[in-house]
Amino acid sequence: MLWRTAQAAGYALLFLDAELSMNETLDAGVVLVRGSAAGFAQEIVAGRHRFRADEPVADGGTDTGPSPYDLLLGALGA
Amino acid sequence: MLWRTAQAAGYALLFLDAELSMNETLDAGVVLVRGSAAGFAQEIVAGRHRFRADEPVADGGTDTGPSPYDLLLGALGA
Repeated sequence: MLWRTAQAAGYALLFLDAELSMNETLDAGVVLVRGSAAGFAQEIVAGRHRFRADEPVADGGTDTGPSPYDLLLGALGA
Repeated sequence: MLWRTAQAAGYALLFLDAELSMNETLDAGVVLVRGSAAGFAQEIVAGRHRFRADEPVADGGTDTGPSPYDLLLGALGA
């Protein structure tokens, strides 16, 4: 349901190996999630905004950002 | 379903007017979402991590952070 709603709103989620230069921005509604496949850290680009996801050290991550669940709850609360 | 899963994982989402000092951290699994009720900008605290949500200027926001949909897609992708 959420995904369908996101599609209806013109949102797209991308998983890319492509390089994106540091100051490049994405079109509105496009979200890029990129990881190194080593560990859980992910870099996320949404429009001109960049943020990170990771897991706590206790769960095997490096705690360089909030966990995916943290982001999900943040999204629901915002 | 997602919420039930989050509960089972010990996650909680808080909406508070309470002041949280700048260097205070929350317990693992607790996510605080706080806004001023003016505009769409929200400050989100998850453990020791802080991030923001807002809406693009085109949607009436101030674009100080990714939108809630951006955060949701980031969470799904991470």
